[in-house]
Amino acid sequence: MPLQPRHDPSQRGFASDNYAGVHPEVLAAIAVANGGHQVSYGEDAYTEHLQDLFKEHFGPRAEAFPVFNGTGANVVALQAMTDRWQSVICAESAHIHVDECGAPEKVAGLKLLTVPTPDGKLTPELIDRQAYGFDDEHRAQPAVVAITQTTELGTCYTPEEIAAVADHAHGLGMKLYVDGARLANAAAHLDLPLRAFTTDAGVDVLSFGGTKNGMMLGECVVAVNPDAVHSIKYLRKAGMQLASKMRFLSVQFEAMLGTDLYLRNARHSNAMAQRLYQAVKDVEGVEIQRAVQANQVFAVLPRDVTERLQKRFKFYTWNEHTGEVRWMTCFDTEERDIDAFAAAIAEEMRGR
Amino acid sequence: MPLQPRHDPSQRGFASDNYAGVHPEVLAAIAVANGGHQVSYGEDAYTEHLQDLFKEHFGPRAEAFPVFNGTGANVVALQAMTDRWQSVICAESAHIHVDECGAPEKVAGLKLLTVPTPDGKLTPELIDRQAYGFDDEHRAQPAVVAITQTTELGTCYTPEEIAAVADHAHGLGMKLYVDGARLANAAAHLDLPLRAFTTDAGVDVLSFGGTKNGMMLGECVVAVNPDAVHSIKYLRKAGMQLASKMRFLSVQFEAMLGTDLYLRNARHSNAMAQRLYQAVKDVEGVEIQRAVQANQVFAVLPRDVTERLQKRFKFYTWNEHTGEVRWMTCFDTEERDIDAFAAAIAEEMRGR
Amino acid sequence: MPLQPRHDPSQRGFASDNYAGVHPEVLAAIAVANGGHQVSYGEDAYTEHLQDLFKEHFGPRAEAFPVFNGTGANVVALQAMTDRWQSVICAESAHIHVDECGAPEKVAGLKLLTVPTPDGKLTPELIDRQAYGFDDEHRAQPAVVAITQTTELGTCYTPEEIAAVADHAHGLGMKLYVDGARLANAAAHLDLPLRAFTTDAGVDVLSFGGTKNGMMLGECVVAVNPDAVHSIKYLRKAGMQLASKMRFLSVQFEAMLGTDLYLRNARHSNAMAQRLYQAVKDVEGVEIQRAVQANQVFAVLPRDVTERLQKRFKFYTWNEHTGEVRWMTCFDTEERDIDAFAAAIAEEMRGR
Amino acid sequence: MPLQPRHDPSQRGFASDNYAGVHPEVLAAIAVANGGHQVSYGEDAYTEHLQDLFKEHFGPRAEAFPVFNGTGANVVALQAMTDRWQSVICAESAHIHVDECGAPEKVAGLKLLTVPTPDGKLTPELIDRQAYGFDDEHRAQPAVVAITQTTELGTCYTPEEIAAVADHAHGLGMKLYVDGARLANAAAHLDLPLRAFTTDAGVDVLSFGGTKNGMMLGECVVAVNPDAVHSIKYLRKAGMQLASKMRFLSVQFEAMLGTDLYLRNARHSNAMAQRLYQAVKDVEGVEIQRAVQANQVFAVLPRDVTERLQKRFKFYTWNEHTGEVRWMTCFDTEERDIDAFAAAIAEEMRGR
Repeated sequence: MPLQPRHDPSQRGFASDNYAGVHPEVLAAIAVANGGHQVSYGEDAYTEHLQDLFKEHFGPRAEAFPVFNGTGANVVALQAMTDRWQSVICAESAHIHVDECGAPEKVAGLKLLTVPTPDGKLTPELIDRQAYGFDDEHRAQPAVVAITQTTELGTCYTPEEIAAVADHAHGLGMKLYVDGARLANAAAHLDLPLRAFTTDAGVDVLSFGGTKNGMMLGECVVAVNPDAVHSIKYLRKAGMQLASKMRFLSVQFEAMLGTDLYLRNARHSNAMAQRLYQAVKDVEGVEIQRAVQANQVFAVLPRDVTERLQKRFKFYTWNEHTGEVRWMTCFDTEERDIDAFAAAIAEEMRGR
Repeated sequence: MPLQPRHDPSQRGFASDNYAGVHPEVLAAIAVANGGHQVSYGEDAYTEHLQDLFKEHFGPRAEAFPVFNGTGANVVALQAMTDRWQSVICAESAHIHVDECGAPEKVAGLKLLTVPTPDGKLTPELIDRQAYGFDDEHRAQPAVVAITQTTELGTCYTPEEIAAVADHAHGLGMKLYVDGARLANAAAHLDLPLRAFTTDAGVDVLSFGGTKNGMMLGECVVAVNPDAVHSIKYLRKAGMQLASKMRFLSVQFEAMLGTDLYLRNARHSNAMAQRLYQAVKDVEGVEIQRAVQANQVFAVLPRDVTERLQKRFKFYTWNEHTGEVRWMTCFDTEERDIDAFAAAIAEEMRGR
Repeated sequence: MPLQPRHDPSQRGFASDNYAGVHPEVLAAIAVANGGHQVSYGEDAYTEHLQDLFKEHFGPRAEAFPVFNGTGANVVALQAMTDRWQSVICAESAHIHVDECGAPEKVAGLKLLTVPTPDGKLTPELIDRQAYGFDDEHRAQPAVVAITQTTELGTCYTPEEIAAVADHAHGLGMKLYVDGARLANAAAHLDLPLRAFTTDAGVDVLSFGGTKNGMMLGECVVAVNPDAVHSIKYLRKAGMQLASKMRFLSVQFEAMLGTDLYLRNARHSNAMAQRLYQAVKDVEGVEIQRAVQANQVFAVLPRDVTERLQKRFKFYTWNEHTGEVRWMTCFDTEERDIDAFAAAIAEEMRGR
Repeated sequence: MPLQPRHDPSQRGFASDNYAGVHPEVLAAIAVANGGHQVSYGEDAYTEHLQDLFKEHFGPRAEAFPVFNGTGANVVALQAMTDRWQSVICAESAHIHVDECGAPEKVAGLKLLTVPTPDGKLTPELIDRQAYGFDDEHRAQPAVVAITQTTELGTCYTPEEIAAVADHAHGLGMKLYVDGARLANAAAHLDLPLRAFTTDAGVDVLSFGGTKNGMMLGECVVAVNPDAVHSIKYLRKAGMQLASKMRFLSVQFEAMLGTDLYLRNARHSNAMAQRLYQAVKDVEGVEIQRAVQANQVFAVLPRDVTERLQKRFKFYTWNEHTGEVRWMTCFDTEERDIDAFAAAIAEEMRGR
């Protein structure tokens, strides 16, 4: 008897883009790559082809290194950009600071120098709050500025904003890293090719996220400026991020970047977030304080409303103190999901 | 246009069980788990069910933690069994010592104390060569004995041998870890349930390997004695081994352990190695020095024969100095593959 | 020909209490401990006696571990209080965060969770800004609150303030560590025995500083609550902080704590800071914004005055942006040093 | 009342050169450096002068970095010579492998690749047993050969032997590090200037040991080839090895290297070991299997004799299995100490 499903595939919520499954085209691609033998650890035909694909999207110098997950991508990349005693400047809300159980510190010995931001974005001025003490051996030397695109707060840097950060970092002798777990959502929001706001804006290294945008798993460290990194191949292996049957990671990226699937998925999830925003922004009692530029809507709700809503739909409270909640849309969110959710919000709000 | 294959799915070799793809039942299971939303990071229905499945196979106290790969499993498990200043006794040929780019040292700060062995297996006597210096702060304190089943040299511990190692380790106040990247091959060789030579033999913690036995990716840290570990959940996340869409790892293990697929695959690859061994052991010039108990055949060949053979079939030289080569069979190796390869060996040998 | 001095022993400045030399009683004690053989690595008569001395000052359960320097003391102690995936809450101005080249992160993999403070002191409310996310594997688990007494900003916690922090930390299941590089200055300021504001206030572990108070070198990790630590002896050795000829560290502490020398030195340097404060607080143009409770005076000066003064006396600028400077007094600062410096300040200020 | 001695300064044994105290000229030098203020953290007049002194002894490119202890020197130096994923080849008997509680692994993430040796010395052939796998990301890349001079087994490399090791390492793209905890004993044994068997033999980096040769504490990392290292200043601070009042370390080295004290002390302790060797080598039942080239004598004794002797004199058993013991002489060992000990050995042996 074949294995039976243990879940209801018609259920979808607003908790996280990690709750969604795998896009059918990605699953089909995996099946295509199956069968026969392929050299392991990245010397297969799919990983080889991936190099061309990433060069198409990020410029002819780009080198791509598939890894398992976002934390792995961040920690491998940041090590490749630093030496043992160096540090990384990032926003206080950065995933590397908030959500990785201290992996950068524990695995790589990296010190993170954080800056509070209003909207999750760093600026030259904000960077300067931590970019000092060069040549002073008492200070872990700032070597990398790390930003997230789109940010953990659902906002999107413009190409100009990234260029300003890159120029400033380079002027200080530092490098620029972009945590691109949702880079596709930025391309969709900006309506620009990926390289327009990465390579062309002065980014040195980035991660290109697949998992949150419809892949089963997989992120890719991309050295768009190979001079900014060293020895990723050793750091990936020692960082426990080298997949043996790598063809099955690489072909998923091919499914995304070899067609416009990365963009279709991102546009869809962004559009669903907009639809939700439009549907609830004027509901009395719902306060939306952040720009909705990707696939996230942050709203401040009365706590009793949140409690009742969470009994009906899955989503997370973002800030216990302020009552802000996060609603996240996915590649597989449907219009009727949004409409039902928006109706429920209005209903619970009226019911107070 | 759907994505096209970039490789010839009819080609198979003898280089590694990582060269093979995904067993069709595993791929089908992944598709079953797809669709809809499931809580991420391990609170999905498939991972929940996996707990029961591992208890069935390894005893009622077993706790299972899926991770991405074997190095990840080893490093997470060994950290969970040790404190910061402790060390691990292992064979000189152990994967953790030889093949992980120093991940145990680099990620976990673990010191490995190695012992040369004739056949890849530790014994109480061999352990004693490193198990000393207790309470001496100048010596990284030996806390864990780590063995591999089946070993990197294709040999298999009997339940009695494992029990002897476990008793000895426990008598010294140490714990026993088993790198079980090929644990299924041991079950097939011994023709015993998994717990007969793990839990019941006194093993504290093990990894259960899936990738080499027909999964796309995934290994599982299994604390069969939960008293021997602490805080795996934090170590897994900080070790960059926590899959967000974990259902797709867990359902692969379900495909393996919820049926007899793990055993079918292992029996088949073991049998293919035996077939190869029988076919070549009497070929003049081929010298087989190691017992063939799993899916590996090690043979000493004249170098010119190796060179000519490697132009026709993929396999690795194991030892440059002695001319020993390794031939590995897989779940998808076919009898005709073996027969063709054996014929080629005989042919090249005659051609000297 | 005996070695000749290379410096002018009559020159003293206001840059740091690390610029001063060794108190004559400490040097005499070192000579007393010399000669003959003593067991190395801490099993000598002086280190043994030190245990009693620390129990006298910090209570009968105190265990003392001499180390080389303050960074060493902090990193050994914090590791002994945490497990691999845990984190430490401290003030943004903490020495462990600002001045140790990332040693806690690099050597121990510790994540520091920082809080801005007005005066260098943590409070229960400030701790709460970082003390959350317990049981969430995505957050490096907060396990220790680390404060500095006296603080890097020259302020001193009262026993009540420390007790409030300790109670709050304990209530959260956390432990309290005190970086006591200038703990003697606190005893002098509070006019209390050391244990009154440490052990009796609920502190779990502290470092007792010797170097800044007249020793040649040496700090001591003191586990006043041994239940809060584990295996310091291994962490000290693996942390490269185990002195072979330890008698020469231990006897320096005996010179300090076996008499009232620690207090005499601290009282003197505190008094010199007060003398300086009184002499300059009413000088027009000198703005003193922080309480002067230890051996530091922080003043905001016009930049040109700072420049001219630094040509005459050694001291550091604390904050380039605000023009705040730090003046530090030592056990060997003389009244005439203060008077000459205060006169120079007034003079340079008038000269604008 | 001044501090009273807690030990008998007339007692001396044969356990370790770390049991001895401080040479009077070193103590006098410390007193000379005392008084007044000097810039901390190494910018004092004594540390500045030290640079010239080390250049005199090790050549004009030598750069010297005082640290606290031998483990610190080794770990700082090896980090400065490697990148995060690299490994170090050393003898199985090396101090870094055997006696540092795993500090190289724990603090620096370094993997040590060990080779058994008959006499504690590496050779090109022995190095080759581990110097392979270059460019293979599964193997922590061998980057440094580390030897100890004189070795942990009391043997001394000739300049030719060191040059052969250096040439071989360089030919493989590796660097040569010398743990010189007893480098002065080698100079005394070889009757050669320090640079003749270090810089001139192709050594890249070394530690120069002071503690075991009459200093209170202190070792010095010396980059005789500065191209072989990077950023020691940061690694020293982050490695918790940066002394604040560094003048008191530096002036001890000046006392040693600014006169011939390093040589006088080493010659004396070597001569005392020879005297002991000559006195006991023909005693029936005492078996001396190792060359006596420094300040150590290794002897195999009947266990009952060892037990009775250890009640009268302090020394360590080196190998529980073989009954080998180690007798160590010091700068302060006197001829009468040797004669009394040799007489006791003969006496206890006769008493069987």
